[in-house]
Amino acid sequence: MFQTAELGQKVAKSEFKQRELVLRENLLALQQRLRLEGDFPVMLDFAGVRGAGKGTSINMLNKWMDARWIVTHAYTEPSDEERERPLFWRIWRHVPPKGQIGIHLSGRYSRPLLDFVYGKISQEEFNHHLDRINNFEKALADDGAMVLKFWMHISRDVQKKRLETLENDPLRSWRMAADDWKHWEMYDRFIEAEEMIISATNTGHAPWEIIEGEDFYYRSLRVGEVFLQTLERHMMKEQIRQKYLSEMRKEVHQHTSQAEATGNGNGKGSQTITIMDALDHSLSMSKKAYRQELAVCQARLAGLHQKAAQKKISTILVFEGPDASGKGGAIRQITEALDARYYKVYPFAAPTDMENAHHYLWRFWNCMPRAGRMTIFDRSWYGRVLVERIEQFAGDDEWRRAFAEINDFEDQLIEDGVVLLKFWLHISKDEQLKRFKDREETPYKRWKLVDEDWRNREKWDDYALAAHEMIQQTSVKKSPWILVENENKAYGRIKVLNSVCDALEKAVAD
Amino acid sequence: MFQTAELGQKVAKSEFKQRELVLRENLLALQQRLRLEGDFPVMLDFAGVRGAGKGTSINMLNKWMDARWIVTHAYTEPSDEERERPLFWRIWRHVPPKGQIGIHLSGRYSRPLLDFVYGKISQEEFNHHLDRINNFEKALADDGAMVLKFWMHISRDVQKKRLETLENDPLRSWRMAADDWKHWEMYDRFIEAEEMIISATNTGHAPWEIIEGEDFYYRSLRVGEVFLQTLERHMMKEQIRQKYLSEMRKEVHQHTSQAEATGNGNGKGSQTITIMDALDHSLSMSKKAYRQELAVCQARLAGLHQKAAQKKISTILVFEGPDASGKGGAIRQITEALDARYYKVYPFAAPTDMENAHHYLWRFWNCMPRAGRMTIFDRSWYGRVLVERIEQFAGDDEWRRAFAEINDFEDQLIEDGVVLLKFWLHISKDEQLKRFKDREETPYKRWKLVDEDWRNREKWDDYALAAHEMIQQTSVKKSPWILVENENKAYGRIKVLNSVCDALEKAVAD
Repeated sequence: MFQTAELGQKVAKSEFKQRELVLRENLLALQQRLRLEGDFPVMLDFAGVRGAGKGTSINMLNKWMDARWIVTHAYTEPSDEERERPLFWRIWRHVPPKGQIGIHLSGRYSRPLLDFVYGKISQEEFNHHLDRINNFEKALADDGAMVLKFWMHISRDVQKKRLETLENDPLRSWRMAADDWKHWEMYDRFIEAEEMIISATNTGHAPWEIIEGEDFYYRSLRVGEVFLQTLERHMMKEQIRQKYLSEMRKEVHQHTSQAEATGNGNGKGSQTITIMDALDHSLSMSKKAYRQELAVCQARLAGLHQKAAQKKISTILVFEGPDASGKGGAIRQITEALDARYYKVYPFAAPTDMENAHHYLWRFWNCMPRAGRMTIFDRSWYGRVLVERIEQFAGDDEWRRAFAEINDFEDQLIEDGVVLLKFWLHISKDEQLKRFKDREETPYKRWKLVDEDWRNREKWDDYALAAHEMIQQTSVKKSPWILVENENKAYGRIKVLNSVCDALEKAVAD
Repeated sequence: MFQTAELGQKVAKSEFKQRELVLRENLLALQQRLRLEGDFPVMLDFAGVRGAGKGTSINMLNKWMDARWIVTHAYTEPSDEERERPLFWRIWRHVPPKGQIGIHLSGRYSRPLLDFVYGKISQEEFNHHLDRINNFEKALADDGAMVLKFWMHISRDVQKKRLETLENDPLRSWRMAADDWKHWEMYDRFIEAEEMIISATNTGHAPWEIIEGEDFYYRSLRVGEVFLQTLERHMMKEQIRQKYLSEMRKEVHQHTSQAEATGNGNGKGSQTITIMDALDHSLSMSKKAYRQELAVCQARLAGLHQKAAQKKISTILVFEGPDASGKGGAIRQITEALDARYYKVYPFAAPTDMENAHHYLWRFWNCMPRAGRMTIFDRSWYGRVLVERIEQFAGDDEWRRAFAEINDFEDQLIEDGVVLLKFWLHISKDEQLKRFKDREETPYKRWKLVDEDWRNREKWDDYALAAHEMIQQTSVKKSPWILVENENKAYGRIKVLNSVCDALEKAVAD
């Protein structure tokens, strides 16, 4: 694999100067086009051998282009903030928005490589990391992102010379790192692991480009030219793909409408009962019993949450359900029992411009709690397979692949030790009407009811079927959906509180 | 996950009869369209709980449609033939050609599930299996295949009733399997593993459909209707996708030609030296030395191959290189030393019609040797990234993703214990001309030279660059490319023989 990058490729300085001029002009023009027309982000990753020119190549790209639209992230040891969150949090934070270029230095590949070479993780764990990376890159690429990865390579002998020169140069010897010589001794072991990385993660949508790093002029030109070619090709392909996707979505929509008209619609036909129909709307609790229970539950929750905070166990609660199903009320009963420094509630509505310029999961990754906190999502990433599906903000292809993306996302949270609970609050269609009318008639509740609520109500059956499918695809033992009969709010709220307490009790006992 | 399939969905017999008529007509018509217009294969997989109606559902599909274009494969314990080959061999064998429907019962998912539930494989190995399955399904789906998977479910209680009824029915009790009750006891453990399977492999391009299996009428209709809807949608989507791909490929081609005209072509520009340029064409061996060496090497090979055969170690040799680079000669020196019962040579040229109706890897999977044999590929799957790339038989997207597909494929061979060696035989452009002329002038060699050889020769540089990239992307420690300087055939052939012997010696010693 790497012998192809030990050939002694060279470019003379004079030739470099000449070609640099052309390249620079082309890069700048293309970057402008990306900003104005490019409806996708660009993610560059630099990895490879010490001394092979990762840093200087990044500097060249920044010099050649308009640095205002390039953000470079160099990853070192994770900070406190980062260590307390799932592994990919720091990577997701730095995904650039559409039209911009993000450069990652020693990013997602660095840590698994070092851990594996140092024997801190097994071959299986290493592979698992690489799978996660593949899922991450696939999610971005499916969304249109250009992902390009440079592997900078020099041979063992060249590296030795590099390190010696550096060491003996009084003005640059400060650049030597403590483990430079140690890693040089381990050169072969690194190469072997690096080969594994590249074979496992060199996909059509996120390719590796191996660059011979010995000659400054050659490698700089090569990085610039490959970047230019790839971006040009991606711009062109992405334009055609967008056209194709919109045509496809139109056709799928038409097709689905037709099929539904003939009773052959998606998921309908033989499927007449949803999981929601199995809920018992008569479950209820008296006001008196509720008050008593509430006090007990809240006290229990307060104690458990303190223990969880001490043990640095994070909790994430997700609330979904039809309009007026009582999500807000259920959340308030929980937060009343908590110390304000240790929880956050994020209500989600339509995404902002900045959020829309990112992958749909990005805004949720940004809300990941530090260790020991509780984070409550009032509506969540499940919007992708509920409202976005039904209102066709997400295409057929997008919401269908979202199930796998969401399962992967939640798997990362659970792997990180997060206690994850997902509540589906449910009411009957009649009860919803009653609550809507109550909102209309009560002055201080009127603001809560908007026209959209009535429109959504007309699509009650579509939502029920989408929710049924969502539960089918994403309710797993490690993070089950808890269905809450909330026709009677007292009953529902106590069920929610008890579920949270039971899960925390189990988690702090482990 | 499965609680959504324990709702007691039912369809009355009278309703079933009515809807079956419509469904059947639609299915038959659609199957006809698939045969005539559908440029893709259909792969259905049935998995799930014992007694949930997998078999009867498959029978219904066969009854409803024209069974001549449906092939059903039910997988049981692997046969001798199957056990001696990599795991996926038996799956690949049964991938249907374009226009046809393949139904797999207890196929690729069954063995990892059982092995995991019985504790024969670890969680990591289980995940690894599921990754392989994902890669397999992705490769087919990328190629246009429709992949749909049915998970038939019944609850623990329903299963118990089913088994009791079966046991007490004198005419059907023979259907009881020895482990039916044992597996019922393990119901919860199975469900947990099944959840893992579905979450990990439920992708947009190969979705799982969970079917409630209690009621015969409901489940049969549901399977038929979901299949019908999915196939209709896939036909429509695939038509648009084909249009898009051909437009995309045309644009990419135009773009590449333009870029090449300006010296900015794919991989060119700064990249002027290829790995082939580093080869020393002066390496040679005298005729006398060759004859001596040859006898020694062949004797050594014969002995080692016998040992390998006894130890059931299979060997796969791949030969690639420019026309007239001496692949045939090198292969003959090897086979001369072997027992004809224990080796096979497969020369590959353009694919046949039947091969073209399958994924490009299919024809190579079909050549996998039984344990202990040696299989020699005179040209191989690497055609995808050489001739198919350069002649544009494969689109830009296709050959780019082929690197990952090939790495995954070879990884499976190596994991299965195969000794895999890949030889790139190389000669200079001048030497090729000399050999072409020699072929022209020697009567008994003339048949070997065809017009295509001259045409390929004009694209020498393109081939060199494609081969360079191929080596960069697919030469890994576990299956390296061995570059053979074959300017002097004596030297080259001995290098090949020695490489094979060294690898076998290492393998039989392990």
